[in-house]
Order: sequence, then C-alpha cells, then structure tokens
Amino acid sequence: MEKWMQVLTEKIPNQQLISDLAGRYSYSFDASFGEHLPDLVVQAKNREEVVHVLKVANDYHIPVYPRGQGTCLSGGPLPVHGGIVLDLSQWPQEIDVQVEDLTVSVSPSVRTAGINEEAEKHGLMYPPDPSSAHVATIGGNLAENSGGPRGLKYGVTKDYVLGLELVTPEGEIIRTGGQTIKNVTGFDLTKLIVGSEGTLGVITEATLKLVPKPLGKQTMMIEFMNLRTAGAAISHTLTSGILPAKIEMMDQACIAAVENFRPSGLPKDAAAIIIVELDGHPETLKVEIEMLQKIMRKIGATGMTIPTTEKEADDIWFARKQVSPAIAKIKPTKVSEDATVPRSKIPDMMDRLQEIKDKYSLELVVFGHAGDGNLHPNILCDKADAAEMKRVEKAVQEIFEAAVDLGGTLSGEHGIGTMKAPFMEYELGAAGLDMMKRIKESWDPNGIMNPGKIFPEKGQKLVLTDG
Amino acid sequence: MEKWMQVLTEKIPNQQLISDLAGRYSYSFDASFGEHLPDLVVQAKNREEVVHVLKVANDYHIPVYPRGQGTCLSGGPLPVHGGIVLDLSQWPQEIDVQVEDLTVSVSPSVRTAGINEEAEKHGLMYPPDPSSAHVATIGGNLAENSGGPRGLKYGVTKDYVLGLELVTPEGEIIRTGGQTIKNVTGFDLTKLIVGSEGTLGVITEATLKLVPKPLGKQTMMIEFMNLRTAGAAISHTLTSGILPAKIEMMDQACIAAVENFRPSGLPKDAAAIIIVELDGHPETLKVEIEMLQKIMRKIGATGMTIPTTEKEADDIWFARKQVSPAIAKIKPTKVSEDATVPRSKIPDMMDRLQEIKDKYSLELVVFGHAGDGNLHPNILCDKADAAEMKRVEKAVQEIFEAAVDLGGTLSGEHGIGTMKAPFMEYELGAAGLDMMKRIKESWDPNGIMNPGKIFPEKGQKLVLTDG
Repeated sequence: MEKWMQVLTEKIPNQQLISDLAGRYSYSFDASFGEHLPDLVVQAKNREEVVHVLKVANDYHIPVYPRGQGTCLSGGPLPVHGGIVLDLSQWPQEIDVQVEDLTVSVSPSVRTAGINEEAEKHGLMYPPDPSSAHVATIGGNLAENSGGPRGLKYGVTKDYVLGLELVTPEGEIIRTGGQTIKNVTGFDLTKLIVGSEGTLGVITEATLKLVPKPLGKQTMMIEFMNLRTAGAAISHTLTSGILPAKIEMMDQACIAAVENFRPSGLPKDAAAIIIVELDGHPETLKVEIEMLQKIMRKIGATGMTIPTTEKEADDIWFARKQVSPAIAKIKPTKVSEDATVPRSKIPDMMDRLQEIKDKYSLELVVFGHAGDGNLHPNILCDKADAAEMKRVEKAVQEIFEAAVDLGGTLSGEHGIGTMKAPFMEYELGAAGLDMMKRIKESWDPNGIMNPGKIFPEKGQKLVLTDG
Repeated sequence: MEKWMQVLTEKIPNQQLISDLAGRYSYSFDASFGEHLPDLVVQAKNREEVVHVLKVANDYHIPVYPRGQGTCLSGGPLPVHGGIVLDLSQWPQEIDVQVEDLTVSVSPSVRTAGINEEAEKHGLMYPPDPSSAHVATIGGNLAENSGGPRGLKYGVTKDYVLGLELVTPEGEIIRTGGQTIKNVTGFDLTKLIVGSEGTLGVITEATLKLVPKPLGKQTMMIEFMNLRTAGAAISHTLTSGILPAKIEMMDQACIAAVENFRPSGLPKDAAAIIIVELDGHPETLKVEIEMLQKIMRKIGATGMTIPTTEKEADDIWFARKQVSPAIAKIKPTKVSEDATVPRSKIPDMMDRLQEIKDKYSLELVVFGHAGDGNLHPNILCDKADAAEMKRVEKAVQEIFEAAVDLGGTLSGEHGIGTMKAPFMEYELGAAGLDMMKRIKESWDPNGIMNPGKIFPEKGQKLVLTDG
C-alpha cells in the first residue's frame, strides 16, 4: 500500500473505505461522459474526517474528487486523475429549519427535494428545483450552483445560500457568510464557493434562505405552429408584468419522443409547446391567467390547455419530466447541453440549432427552461459510431459558439466540469480566465481539489468517446 | 513633479486632473469619518483612461482610490494612504434598457435612482433603493453592494448584477458574467467583485437585471408600546405567508427627533413604530392588508394607520427619510452603524443596544430595515469631546460584538471600509480572513487598489477622531 494511503486510512473507519476494483468502479462515472477509476474511495461522515483526508492529500499531492449522488451532467465528480473520491452522500442527514429566521441549516448529504419538503411543513419553500432534486444531494447542488424550472422567478441555488462551512484544500475549516439576509463583511466567499465545482474546498454545512410558500399555483400549456412564435410568446409574457414561476418549452421531436415513450396526451401536431406555471395569491392567479390567454391568442397560439384540477396539472408536468428518459430511448447515447442565451435571442438560437442539426445530419432535439434562455439542446447518437461522434463533437462546439456569439454562455446550470473546459477561454478571454486561475492557485497551491475541472488542461479538446 | 505623476498626466486631459490643495481637499472625506488628502485627483471619463491610470499606478506602486459621489458611510473612497483618487462621477452617463431581456447596461457614473426611473418607462423596476439613491452612483453601489428598504423582498445590489466590465489592478480589461439570468461558467467573479469595495479593480460597466414593476402598493404604519413587541410583530408577519417589500422601524427617540425637526404627524407617544409597504397585484394587497391587521391586533399593536391615498403614504415614507437628517441635529457628530442580526434575534439585539446605551451614557437611537434584521443604531455625540468619543468607540465595539454573538454580522449594507476593518477577524476568524487576503494578493500583487480598506492593518484600532 502506498504511503499516503496508509497515513490516510489510519484515521478513517475501515467500513468507510472502498479500495476493491468493483467498489471503485461504481465511482468511476457520473451522468455525463467518460470513466475514470479512483485509487481509493472515502465515505466521509463528519468534518474531522474531511479535514484529515484533505490534509493528507495536500501533504502527498493526491487529487481529491468530492461526490454526492453523481447525477452531475458535466463531469464534476469524475476522478480524471485518479486519487481519492470523497463520497459525502453517506454523511448523516441533518436539516434544521429556523422558522422565524426563514432559514435552514443542512448537512451536505441532504437530498435537495427533502429541504423543500421540510420547509413546506412550516409554510415555507426552498425554491431551487433541479430535475434531479429527488436524488441529488444539496452538496452537489451547491458545488454546481444547480438551477431548475423555478429559476425563472426564484433564481438558482446561489441565490439561497447565506452561509457555508468549508474545509479548505489545506484542511482548514472556515465559515463564510452567516444567517443574515444582508451581509457585506469582506469578500463574498459564499457566492465564490457556490458553483466552483469542488475546486476550492469541500462544503461541510450550509445555511439556506427560505421564502414563504405561495398560496396557490396554476398551470397552462400553449401550442405553437413554429419555434420562433413560441420564443416570441415567452418574451411578450415576461414584458407584460407577469413573472411566472416556470416557463418550459418542448419542440416537436421531444413531444413525439414522450408520446412514444409514455403517452401523456401532448399535442403531437404542435411544432412546439410551452408549459407555464404561475404561483401566488389565488385572486392574482385568476387575473394573470386571463392576461396570459389574451397574450397567447394575440401572438397566434394554435391551442391552449388550462387544467382545472391539480391532477390534470401534475400530468402535464409529469410529461415534461419524461423528456429526458424518453429521448434517451431514441438512440444509445445522449449528449445533453445547456447553452444559455439572453431571452430576446431565443428565436435566433432556435434557428442556429436547426442549422447545426442539418449541417451535421444529427438527431438534435430542444427543450428546457426557455423563460430564462436556458435551453437544453440534446443530441441523440451512438458512441460506438466513431464517425458520428466526430460530427457530434463539431456540433457541440458550434452550439457553444452560437450561444456565446448571441451574448450567452456555455452553461446556464449544468456546470463546466470536463466537457466544457476546452471552451472557457472562448467565452472569458485569456485575462478573465487568468483571474479565475489566480484564485484557484492562491487557495489550492498544490492543485489537489478536483483537478481537471473548469480550467482547460494544455491542449485539451472536447472528446465524447470514453476512456 | 514626481515621475509617476508626470507619466500619468501625459495621457489624461488637463481639465480632468485636480492637483491644487482646495480641489484635492474636496476629495479628502466621505459621509463617514476622517480626512485624508490625495496627491492627485483624476476624473476618468472612459475605460482607456482607467487602464492608463492603473497601469501607471501599478508600475510605480501608487495607491488608487476609486470614488463615485462620496456618500459612503464606511470610508470606502477615503485616500487613507494618499496617492490617486479616481473620480468616476464625471464619466458620461449611459443607460441602455434591453426590454425583452429584462436587463439594463449602465456606465459607473449613472445615478442609482436614474436606473429605476428609466426602467419604469418600460413597466420594469430596478429594486435596490439605498437612501442615497438620488445622489449616489451605481459604481459606488456596486463596490459596496448597497442595500435599502426593498432589500427585504427584493434583495440587494448583488442580486441584480448579471455582468461587469472591470479594469484589473494591473490594468487589464476583463468581462465577467454576461446578459443571461443563469450562468455557471467558472468562478462567479461578478459576485466576488460586487461588494469588494474597490479593492479588486475598477468597475467600468455593468449589466443589471430588471423585474416587472408591481401593479400596486399599500403602506401601513403600526404603533407599539415597546421595542420587543415591534420585533415580534415583524417575525409573525414574515412567517404568515406575507412578504412585504419593506418593513422599517423607528424607536421613540427617532420619532421625537423627526417631529422636532419637521413635524410629520408621527405618533410621539409610541415606543416604536414599524412602517410596512406591501406591493403586488391590487387584489392580493386587499387580502394581505386584512391579514396584516389581524396579526398586529393579535400581537398587541396600540395603533394602526392605513393611508388611503398615495399622498398620505408618501408623507409616511417622507417622515422615515427624515430620520437621518433629524437625528443629526441632536448633536454635532453622528456615528451610524448597520450591524445586522438574524430576524429572530431583533428583540435580543434591542435589549443589548439599550444596555450599551446606559452603560456608556450615550445618545443612542435605533431605526432601520428591521424586516431583514438590518438595524441602524446611531450614536449622537460631539467629536470635539475626546472623553465622550472614547466612550463611543467602546460602545461601537460592543455593538459589533453583540451582533456577531447573536449570529449576525458587522455590516448588513454599509461595508467595512476603514471603520470596521479592526473587527474583521472577530467575525471571520484568522483562516477566513486569510482566504480573503489570498484573493486580494493574487489579483493586486502591488496592493494599489484601495489599500487600507476591508483588511485590518497591523495593530489597527477603531478611531473616530479626525486626521
């Protein structure tokens, strides 16, 4: 056994260590691409164990890859340089709601959906709702600054983090922010750490902001003859004084995929649909739903569905949730992107995506959180088909370029990880990327925290073929 | 003329340079304490001039102190080590609203209130509303992450910044974030820079998020027999499902000061009042105002005023705005703090403040944004009275300690600057402060950007006497 492993394992209970091949293999992938075998897996259950692991790793310059439930779509937890996978999902789940402060303290292993369930017991809400909320841990959500449909009205994970406890790459425990809504005491380390993809340390506790739970909600599904009109309908809605909680979009290919996968009564003949959820006081909802109908008629919607029961509304949202599994059935490999553009550029981005689809003759479908410009173009392909994957790689690159050219960004909510690292300089410029690197190097001089993520390695290119 | 000054002035139009004593003197103070004379004032009007100033300053290791309108309450723009004051208030004012994107691009010199005025023309709103909004520039608001009454419902400046253009301490231009609501491309430099008090570079442009303007608003003033009940009323309101846009509080001393300064019909016999503003759809407002009345009756409010006209409401908010000028008349010197505590700790903080007031027999009054725990304890004193000022210094220190002990923070919205720097380690701990310093040093190796702010200098103590 190597020296570092010996020193590390001394202070960690044996049943929290995984060193056999089968065990390590199950930590070699996430929901994105590539397989990378770690040398050791540590299931940390308290901050002292995290401190120990980081101090040893820092002393011996061993890479550390923090991991929650591995639902990441951008390779965040992949141990691309081997070393240690630090599994935080087995940490005891602690949720402590401070009702009068409208805050909640959580351990990193808590399921994201569990936070909202707990909040609702007190008439409160934790708004961030990534699709993986029922599986993913808050630790992973914090590392990636996860979004979700409700981001349109309520913002993303970062907007709800008041304070953090972090173990630094050198094994020091620091507390950032606090329990107050307002805090301008020095640099905002809290918002720097949230979304840093585990490259600046390991989050061991978080204090999150809660909001009063809206008294009511109302769903509406609208059909369109083409994607551009759907895009325009979204812009008109958002400048009408109405701010829906969610505006989701599905193109014809997604609708067809869902109906073939699990028929849900979606309008198969529509070129696109948008699904809106309004929330707030019931009196307001009545007024807003009427305004919305007027807007949609005016812009040329070809159909509208306004569910009158919760069951009917749930069915529509269930159909939306089926998109990912449904399109995954089309072909063996699914390349999921989340390039994001300013809202007004959604129609242009739709056109660019159509061009890219035709140019490389690929199965490309589009859905996503259109209300905030956060689209999810997905390419369905077969990673066994090397020629096709080369075309996919080119297409993905052009999708990133299109987003940035339109004033958008590489990633709205999935993160950079390994997949988008090669394109960072294209968006940020050399000087911008350099200022990020300076922070990374000043916090992690030995480069042990999640190396190989965010920052492109020399000559790194997008590769969608495994290994 | 010194060499650096010679090199610097070569590329800056003469009329944008101020080197005479009278001119420099007018840049030697802000709205806080202390006077510090700069060696030179440069009124920069474009990014190239900022780049030139910073490159020269960095080459010759000359301190640079960016400044807007100098309304800062924590010493942000004070040139404590001499050098250059970089005045950005003369920069041409540019406001460009992108209506469909719900965003606005601004130059650093734009008046904060001007942004909201422009947004309202399109049915939109820029929520942050610091009391100085009609004078202060957005550049200063960004540097200090300014708050304001509406912070309760809408958050603070940082919550509305999507992207920045920054000139780094070494004179490189970088762009952070962008125009999209969602962006997880690398570290969040945008939110790191906002609130960094000009220590990480000079902001030359910002893209801000706008929201739909609420369709209506309703004010309510409630009277209480004691401060604790007022505090409890706030907690009850916020856990009732109602989230007011503002909840402001004034204690008896503030009420008396306002009525003596400019009679506004405030209830002189009340121990405390809270002023609430609800906003949203008119139908919702009707329902919420009734709920609020029930809550206040139940908790033992001694009086309620519900204005029925906009004029009546404006009069109440005008009275609130009179507090600062009114209390300034009580004694020659006003020490304004903004220690912030978790909402549930407001009553405890009230008690601590009362104890401190008695212990040091000082004129201490309390008002502020009680809804988010952001209180403004103000001490009225006379800086000519050295003995009294020593007691004030002790009292201020105990106020900071009380806030931190109650799980709060040194500053909710005013910033650290020079005044609170000595207390940073008390709140952050040595390791936490060290991680902030690492960022500062990696971005500004020569320490030229706003030196003497945020980070305590060796042996630095709070001193409230000038010079």
